[in-house]
Amino acid sequence: METARPGPVPTVDYVHGYSRREGRRLGDQADTLARLLHDGTSYPAGSRVLEIGCGVGAQTVHLLRSSPGAHIVAADRSEESLARARAHVAAAVPDARMEWHRADVYDLPFADGEFDHVFVCFVLEHLPAPRQALAVLRSVLRPGGTLTVIEGDHGSAFFHPDSLYARAAIECQISLQTAAGGNPLLGRELHPLLTGAGYEDVEVRPRTVYADRTRPALAEGFTRDTFTAMVEAVRGDALAAALITSADWDRGIADLHRTAREGTFHYTFFKATAVNPSPPSATKPSPV
Amino acid sequence: METARPGPVPTVDYVHGYSRREGRRLGDQADTLARLLHDGTSYPAGSRVLEIGCGVGAQTVHLLRSSPGAHIVAADRSEESLARARAHVAAAVPDARMEWHRADVYDLPFADGEFDHVFVCFVLEHLPAPRQALAVLRSVLRPGGTLTVIEGDHGSAFFHPDSLYARAAIECQISLQTAAGGNPLLGRELHPLLTGAGYEDVEVRPRTVYADRTRPALAEGFTRDTFTAMVEAVRGDALAAALITSADWDRGIADLHRTAREGTFHYTFFKATAVNPSPPSATKPSPV
Repeated sequence: METARPGPVPTVDYVHGYSRREGRRLGDQADTLARLLHDGTSYPAGSRVLEIGCGVGAQTVHLLRSSPGAHIVAADRSEESLARARAHVAAAVPDARMEWHRADVYDLPFADGEFDHVFVCFVLEHLPAPRQALAVLRSVLRPGGTLTVIEGDHGSAFFHPDSLYARAAIECQISLQTAAGGNPLLGRELHPLLTGAGYEDVEVRPRTVYADRTRPALAEGFTRDTFTAMVEAVRGDALAAALITSADWDRGIADLHRTAREGTFHYTFFKATAVNPSPPSATKPSPV
Repeated sequence: METARPGPVPTVDYVHGYSRREGRRLGDQADTLARLLHDGTSYPAGSRVLEIGCGVGAQTVHLLRSSPGAHIVAADRSEESLARARAHVAAAVPDARMEWHRADVYDLPFADGEFDHVFVCFVLEHLPAPRQALAVLRSVLRPGGTLTVIEGDHGSAFFHPDSLYARAAIECQISLQTAAGGNPLLGRELHPLLTGAGYEDVEVRPRTVYADRTRPALAEGFTRDTFTAMVEAVRGDALAAALITSADWDRGIADLHRTAREGTFHYTFFKATAVNPSPPSATKPSPV
């Protein structure tokens, strides 16, 4: 098989950590952004859908709601995240019937071609070998099955009032995520990445968040409680690594809060869809 | 009148220059982006619409096409641009009936409240006093009339493969436009700017251009022929000002061409609509 699964890759740290606060942040983010990100994603009744890297179940809830007849299989490598995902889903979609698996994306416990669709959200940007992960995912996808990927790109963040301190604080998050083996600028690379992993009909579209004073829920839910909170979460690591002084850090975070309160903020997510090509026909014309 | 017109402001250089090549670039840009930028802008038959800073008429053509019954009045401070705009419109919309005026945005030859709508595209980002210009425009707008503004934000550009050289070349364009009195990052500021100039119901939305290999027309028409061409146009000034070495410049431009050819490119325009508020009623209750 051309999609033979590569061996497991060493685990790296997950830059966002696993704290309860972090879990709540991801929950808030999913709710605020659900329409923006999930619009257009609905799987047919009876289809088998794998959500890889489900984390605390923030996106799982939206998948279940937009595809009520599909059979959702959610997998994550963290037992603790899975437990919280189960609780989150049980509370939000009490009648949901689905499967849960503890699994590493590089070494999946599923059969070749077992799924009609694969859904990946905010996962590839944390992996040291995203193309390898995409190859593994392709192996569990049936020929003609689809892949949907949603990823951010922290280089897309800009804001008013502009601030060198805020930019420096964001750069700390980018440096730390990169040092942990991830790629916080992955969104812009989705097209070559999916094409390079052998997918076809790759279509990437930006999903842009823009918040100003006319959109206070978005300014709070996204600018403050999602993006700024994500940056704030790496304070300790950034200071420990001497990437920034504490005074500059505090000024940068204060400036980000100001953009949420009275300025404007822009961020672009990228959403890609792609198809797992059918293998070449078994009855090839034999060479002359 | 609270919207009394301020006096004229000294003219500054137009960073893009007035060459024929530059005029063609702006024409290409308008055609490629027309749908993205003009979607939602259509003025009722009989309404009087001022396009200020019409330049070579690139947007004028789209205004005429989307609002065939409106009375369009186009104004620009450059006699040469106006001549080319007339020729461009005559060729593209032969039956158009409209007015042309040579006028400076800070000192308009129109009566108070003469227009139902004002349209401003890629103009404020070149002005040293955009808020003052907006106040002047408000004075020629009737109470309840609307303003539509479209501006870019060069800080929104990011691409794959990423390149420090390409970023440096873009920074040259930003520095030169800023030195010429403009604000190439104005898009993100539209909301506070319009609100500060006394407009109401200000609504700003991002209009995001994203190009990859699946969109060759956009990669050529926008990434290469619009954005990269705009940056390339300042080569002489950037080198003369010693903002960059010629080797670094050439590498940066080559890297931008590579994103057009085989990478991805992202840019966000901002489109704002706003209303000129009605003045307070003339029959105020008298103070006790």
